[in-house]
Amino acid sequence: MQIGMIGLGRMGADMVRRLIQGEHDCIVYDLDIHAVETLEQEGCTGARSLEEFCAQLTTPRVVWLMVPAAVVDSTLKSLVPLLSANDVIIDGGNSHYHDDIRRAGELQAAGIHYLDVGTSGGIFGRGRGYCLMIGGEQEVVERVDPVFTTLAPGIGTATRTPGREHGKGTAEQGYLHCGPSGAGHFVKMVHNGIEYGLMAAYAEGVNILRHAGAGKESRAADAETTPLRNPEYYQYELNLADITEVWRRGSVITSWLLDLTATALLDNPDLKDFQGRVSDSGEGRWTIAAAIDEGVPANVLSAAVYERFSSRGNADFANRLLSAMRYQFGGHREHR
Amino acid sequence: MQIGMIGLGRMGADMVRRLIQGEHDCIVYDLDIHAVETLEQEGCTGARSLEEFCAQLTTPRVVWLMVPAAVVDSTLKSLVPLLSANDVIIDGGNSHYHDDIRRAGELQAAGIHYLDVGTSGGIFGRGRGYCLMIGGEQEVVERVDPVFTTLAPGIGTATRTPGREHGKGTAEQGYLHCGPSGAGHFVKMVHNGIEYGLMAAYAEGVNILRHAGAGKESRAADAETTPLRNPEYYQYELNLADITEVWRRGSVITSWLLDLTATALLDNPDLKDFQGRVSDSGEGRWTIAAAIDEGVPANVLSAAVYERFSSRGNADFANRLLSAMRYQFGGHREHR
Amino acid sequence: MQIGMIGLGRMGADMVRRLIQGEHDCIVYDLDIHAVETLEQEGCTGARSLEEFCAQLTTPRVVWLMVPAAVVDSTLKSLVPLLSANDVIIDGGNSHYHDDIRRAGELQAAGIHYLDVGTSGGIFGRGRGYCLMIGGEQEVVERVDPVFTTLAPGIGTATRTPGREHGKGTAEQGYLHCGPSGAGHFVKMVHNGIEYGLMAAYAEGVNILRHAGAGKESRAADAETTPLRNPEYYQYELNLADITEVWRRGSVITSWLLDLTATALLDNPDLKDFQGRVSDSGEGRWTIAAAIDEGVPANVLSAAVYERFSSRGNADFANRLLSAMRYQFGGHREHR
Amino acid sequence: MQIGMIGLGRMGADMVRRLIQGEHDCIVYDLDIHAVETLEQEGCTGARSLEEFCAQLTTPRVVWLMVPAAVVDSTLKSLVPLLSANDVIIDGGNSHYHDDIRRAGELQAAGIHYLDVGTSGGIFGRGRGYCLMIGGEQEVVERVDPVFTTLAPGIGTATRTPGREHGKGTAEQGYLHCGPSGAGHFVKMVHNGIEYGLMAAYAEGVNILRHAGAGKESRAADAETTPLRNPEYYQYELNLADITEVWRRGSVITSWLLDLTATALLDNPDLKDFQGRVSDSGEGRWTIAAAIDEGVPANVLSAAVYERFSSRGNADFANRLLSAMRYQFGGHREHR
Repeated sequence: MQIGMIGLGRMGADMVRRLIQGEHDCIVYDLDIHAVETLEQEGCTGARSLEEFCAQLTTPRVVWLMVPAAVVDSTLKSLVPLLSANDVIIDGGNSHYHDDIRRAGELQAAGIHYLDVGTSGGIFGRGRGYCLMIGGEQEVVERVDPVFTTLAPGIGTATRTPGREHGKGTAEQGYLHCGPSGAGHFVKMVHNGIEYGLMAAYAEGVNILRHAGAGKESRAADAETTPLRNPEYYQYELNLADITEVWRRGSVITSWLLDLTATALLDNPDLKDFQGRVSDSGEGRWTIAAAIDEGVPANVLSAAVYERFSSRGNADFANRLLSAMRYQFGGHREHR
Repeated sequence: MQIGMIGLGRMGADMVRRLIQGEHDCIVYDLDIHAVETLEQEGCTGARSLEEFCAQLTTPRVVWLMVPAAVVDSTLKSLVPLLSANDVIIDGGNSHYHDDIRRAGELQAAGIHYLDVGTSGGIFGRGRGYCLMIGGEQEVVERVDPVFTTLAPGIGTATRTPGREHGKGTAEQGYLHCGPSGAGHFVKMVHNGIEYGLMAAYAEGVNILRHAGAGKESRAADAETTPLRNPEYYQYELNLADITEVWRRGSVITSWLLDLTATALLDNPDLKDFQGRVSDSGEGRWTIAAAIDEGVPANVLSAAVYERFSSRGNADFANRLLSAMRYQFGGHREHR
Repeated sequence: MQIGMIGLGRMGADMVRRLIQGEHDCIVYDLDIHAVETLEQEGCTGARSLEEFCAQLTTPRVVWLMVPAAVVDSTLKSLVPLLSANDVIIDGGNSHYHDDIRRAGELQAAGIHYLDVGTSGGIFGRGRGYCLMIGGEQEVVERVDPVFTTLAPGIGTATRTPGREHGKGTAEQGYLHCGPSGAGHFVKMVHNGIEYGLMAAYAEGVNILRHAGAGKESRAADAETTPLRNPEYYQYELNLADITEVWRRGSVITSWLLDLTATALLDNPDLKDFQGRVSDSGEGRWTIAAAIDEGVPANVLSAAVYERFSSRGNADFANRLLSAMRYQFGGHREHR
Repeated sequence: MQIGMIGLGRMGADMVRRLIQGEHDCIVYDLDIHAVETLEQEGCTGARSLEEFCAQLTTPRVVWLMVPAAVVDSTLKSLVPLLSANDVIIDGGNSHYHDDIRRAGELQAAGIHYLDVGTSGGIFGRGRGYCLMIGGEQEVVERVDPVFTTLAPGIGTATRTPGREHGKGTAEQGYLHCGPSGAGHFVKMVHNGIEYGLMAAYAEGVNILRHAGAGKESRAADAETTPLRNPEYYQYELNLADITEVWRRGSVITSWLLDLTATALLDNPDLKDFQGRVSDSGEGRWTIAAAIDEGVPANVLSAAVYERFSSRGNADFANRLLSAMRYQFGGHREHR
């Protein structure tokens, strides 16, 4: 079917490529003319302006936005006046689901439909397929079904869950209509919250392995520092690339993130290419905010988010205050 | 090769079956005579006593223990006098690695070798293979290599890590000599610590999805309870079986534990078969103890362990004290 | 000076009593006629309706609201039409500071001033004084200064901070203009976030003391449960009332919350009067939300809030899912 | 009474001064001759060697050790051969309570008594008194009672807990016999665990106040970074010295640590004198280890310990691994 894509960054361009391969007719637009030209050479119709883009699409149009969450609203402001009743806008980026609920309501007045689609897959999605979590009206989701089918990985990419033999629905294809507006990004938000938690579990565990030789270092014996009571138990030098590799087969903790971890540690055993200032793109935070609103505990997911904040130096004032208190009550000076 | 197995519970019996299939010659012993008889019918040589067991094994013997960690030492006490110099004992259970270091030292005096083998795989290991993490002397590990090769999953069970094409070593087979005595169980301990963290990340995330309809419940407006500020954002009824299924393909959080989660939620969407009193078998705790000794933070792994403690009611006195303090300063009575 | 008080619950009534004692002229109103009558007998002017209440106050009026956060907006809806330009409304309850910013803006159009006053002190405030954290316009804060001076504890209630000898400002009196609208409740919110953290620190610590005899209990030795490795170290029966009492003098952890803890444990050593379902009144959650917005870690404060959620059973589905996963991979049944 | 003190560092010397003031007869020894001479000038009898020290003490001797935990055993090795049956050794430092249990057992063979005394008070203890938590034999504790009475703050230093009017025991004096050997340091250990938790609660809360102007900073809008959704709510510039001061009177969170925090922030509002590398002296870690052994959750206390580990860079490898994973799946480069 015909689909328009706005936003040809890493994710958007690769999704277009997967759609072309699935024999869809793609009209593409980006502020960066080079990105448009590149995809023209791969078989798309490129547009030089939003006006041209909308003119090239047959009504009722289907427009997929793959732009940073921060510019979705400004994009809509320019785009919507060029659309017609019954057109469909899909936000496939990382919008906050509150914005989805608001936008769907605002667009309804103009007769325009809005789907929110949480998209997971990263740079591997082009080959591996994208996991799609969708919110919005049922009949609109069905209208776009051919596109979802192509973008999703398909049933063959995992073994069948026992009991699914007679199943229906699309979950096994790798895409799912989760509920009304916002439900797609809500589910994607929690997906990313879990992702942060999983990553932190591996990172903490590997860090414990990394320090398994702590007993070889001597520690000063003074009133400030506790000696390691049992240095004989921390004398190992472990090969982290081999250990993460061995876990990839037969263990309880096999996962795609473990596969990537094993790759990263084989490439770069000391991870010297990284500083350890870890970004967070919002969904982890929003997951915590949802947990708090719902009144459910999220110790692990919160800790994962906070570790990223700390990695960027945001605990510094708190830490200085701890040292200041220790100085006040005990005259303790910081070790340097 | 010939190998003796002591302990024919769920894990031990299945490992023997995998070894028989690999054409090894298995001598088996268990206090439960029925367990022995069952395996005799499947092609093993069964022993009625430890004496008989040791007599049936050709020296230098290789004896694999697959018994609860709590009875390893008492088993060794009975077993060791029946062994000879140069025999090998393998502890494949969940021993604390401190015990491995101690035992290897004690057995050395008698010329007996000791390997500690952390074994992951659970009830699926018979078919899927076991991930084996091994500690002990290099030459002894090599002696037992045929057994490890059979028990491990083999290279074909996962895609190859980029850069491993010209690799050597056994990690890709699913077993690894990690280091000297204790290293196997140390690595397995951290593996389980990570496992707890991963499980908790999924459980917390799914719980947030489960409560996504919190805005539908009314909350009393009094000085004790905060009203949900934005109930319109918590109106979803999400299908957890479908959501965990959709995540299995193409998403960043695919894993074996997710596969199991999707199975569990399909079987039993409300999980009514479970009370939520979650056991812990020690390794999670020991991982935290190691992190503390090493001085490395483990917020996520600790939170995962503590959630299990809380699930069993071990925070109750602390919670009662919180209510007691609130009553003291604010006259607040508990809601019931 | 003259002041009107709406809301004569535990906090509001005691604040009126402290104001009467300070020779202020108090007009009081509450939906509960008995509460009004009680204070009339103690020297206030009572009103039977909001209309009467407003008529009794001299313009420019000063009206203090001490009502549940959930009913502030509905109270304002009835009250504001009865007020005049230049009147002052003070919200002394537990409003979210976002609401303060909104309300101050809305009331500005009618020429009415709005102060947000976070109030700490609980049921002891009448005698001990209230700690007041104030947001709003400087000149309006100054207009109400006599009331703040009376409600606050006064400088004599704590030893002087070194360096404050030549200080100015009101912080040492126990009240403070923290900043523009919302700043009072923002600071009070964080105050309560800290309060939750402090309470949790004591509760966790006392719980560890409570279980110091854990080595006396026997634990089953099976593959599910780890035996306590060193029961000889957990043979204590500690007197918690005496321990919290001894900490009240000379230790680093003396505090008012510790005083209350010692009282609670002396009264009720096993805390049998409490179930351990701990309420939270909102500020702890909002503190976490602020930390997330700001991108600063709050591991301790979050854990304190989550412990309360868990104490009320909100982790149950997550825990059942953990048991379900364990059953899936290991065939583990829950202990009962 | 006569008492010998070994270890004249900050704590030991001040304790001697408090004992002199209480008219006890103090024999003192330290490897640092200057420390001995200083106290000789203040009225003590100084010793130049352990032999001289023991000779100067009348039997049965009472010897108080105030040395780093790491050198207690080596000190005992030199000291014990110079002592006689029925002498008393008191360890007033920060020993692990496991060591107390071992030492008490070892010394029993020689007829020497051992008390473990957890001592809190820091550099203010000389004036404020020391909170003493004592483990060992009842009759030996009673023998040393005059010393404990002098070192402790005394009943007048806090208001009386309701219900204590007819109380007996010494808890109100500020010292307590907690139980058999190790109980003193066990209680002191948990005291310090709580101390870490309290400090972290204040530090996290103050850090949230410190960042209350986060909405004034602009954040880049790209796919990596989430924009702050509501910058209008983070426009405050708060005076942290005044806020911590106002909390000192009438609020629920008054405490001695808050007093110190207010002092530190008045001195040094930006805390530029500190780097934020926070030491930990062992008890916090041991408290966590005890919680794990007992199977009770300690989320807050653990988080407090882990923040210190992170402040010293011990999460760095974990953080680099998180960035490495993000690079693997998303091509994300670290922001610098």
